[in-house]
Amino acid sequence: MLLDGSCFRLAEAGPFRVGRKALAVNLSDIAAMAAKPVAAFAAVGLPRRGGRDIAEELFRGLRSMADQFDTAIAGGDTNSWDGPLVISVTLVGEPMGRGPVRRRGAQPGDWLFVTGPLGGSIHGKHLDFTPRVNEALQLHAVVNLHAMIDISDGLATDLAKLCAESRCGAAVRAEAVPISDDARKMDDNLSPLEHALRDGEDFELLFAVSPEDGRRLLADGALCQIGECVADGLWLERAGTREPLAPQGYEHKLE
Amino acid sequence: MLLDGSCFRLAEAGPFRVGRKALAVNLSDIAAMAAKPVAAFAAVGLPRRGGRDIAEELFRGLRSMADQFDTAIAGGDTNSWDGPLVISVTLVGEPMGRGPVRRRGAQPGDWLFVTGPLGGSIHGKHLDFTPRVNEALQLHAVVNLHAMIDISDGLATDLAKLCAESRCGAAVRAEAVPISDDARKMDDNLSPLEHALRDGEDFELLFAVSPEDGRRLLADGALCQIGECVADGLWLERAGTREPLAPQGYEHKLE
Repeated sequence: MLLDGSCFRLAEAGPFRVGRKALAVNLSDIAAMAAKPVAAFAAVGLPRRGGRDIAEELFRGLRSMADQFDTAIAGGDTNSWDGPLVISVTLVGEPMGRGPVRRRGAQPGDWLFVTGPLGGSIHGKHLDFTPRVNEALQLHAVVNLHAMIDISDGLATDLAKLCAESRCGAAVRAEAVPISDDARKMDDNLSPLEHALRDGEDFELLFAVSPEDGRRLLADGALCQIGECVADGLWLERAGTREPLAPQGYEHKLE
Repeated sequence: MLLDGSCFRLAEAGPFRVGRKALAVNLSDIAAMAAKPVAAFAAVGLPRRGGRDIAEELFRGLRSMADQFDTAIAGGDTNSWDGPLVISVTLVGEPMGRGPVRRRGAQPGDWLFVTGPLGGSIHGKHLDFTPRVNEALQLHAVVNLHAMIDISDGLATDLAKLCAESRCGAAVRAEAVPISDDARKMDDNLSPLEHALRDGEDFELLFAVSPEDGRRLLADGALCQIGECVADGLWLERAGTREPLAPQGYEHKLE
């Protein structure tokens, strides 16, 4: 569910990119299980003023993602109200050959990879990212994915989730974390590495494989080995030292 | 998708009944196809203030419906924002023996039935109705349902939809329309019959069967034969005369 003013600002992003993102975040969740997307259901709460134009652009955005990933828009629900734009998409997927990949299944000694550079997605990638559906299906076909998650709340936070489900720990090598150009453009008191570790909504995949499978994947220049699974704890290694890696990232706050 | 201030008022209904209704309206849609509910996915946008308590009561309401109809709550998405409560549920169902029943398939000569009294649901039934899942499955097992729809926007409006999809017309006998006690309690310039024809959110089923099947169903006291399908037009018959039946009911309005 994407909410105007919280997950995006309609006036800045425009309805096409919001519709695109509403399906893309779901495609990213399906990718994280190495499944194939099948059919999407979209419900919208449209502001009364300009609602028809917004609806048409939203649908064009949904359609662009659906076409790109061969997914049906199979149903949904249309409402108008006095509030801001809300869109909620549910996506049905189909497990592939080896079955769905889960967050649990990583083991100490496994190698950890990410599918692309991280951090600073607020500069635009959070709206315009390409969900890693095809990459996940290709990986699933050639290696045994022990555990996988998409990075929506930040590398450190999502790694902590994967480790908690797998009942193991992880050590990340600072110099191995791929830092995006957008992370380097951030102008605040956090370093580019901290942005790569903490920022949400990169929607790259984080996964664990055996060292044998990991060695086979190193030939693929798009994949970055960022560390290994260990018995317990979350650690950041740099310059020969190891410090705790706090699972800081995006959290929804309630009062 | 149910939106506070538009589909319900949280302060009046309370979060339990909202959660219950959010699943019940989906169960009614599955019932309208004579399918069996399987798994529900619920996304919420929670107001920051009191969001945790609201979430717990919402879930209790969802749970009560899910348990009653043997449905899993299989996933979803939780958000907080500065806006009013929003909840969107997607329900996956499984077609039964003769396959899904659609809105198309009614033929001139078919008898039209509804599963219960209509009108005035604003007095409470719009929140507390029981979706006709079990009734639909029983009907589907014993007769050949030509076409079916749940009455969410009003009998006249939903009958018009069923007829449009079936490319036929219908004649409704005024004295045969079951009028609820709540419709008689409405205190405005519309008659109880007009409320039964126009009011939305009764969530009874409207369906068409052959006269042979119809005669077998007349023994069931809960079912009301309200008229027949004809070649074209929508008609209301009373005291030996026939007048056009306008498809007046609830419509979402956009500017």
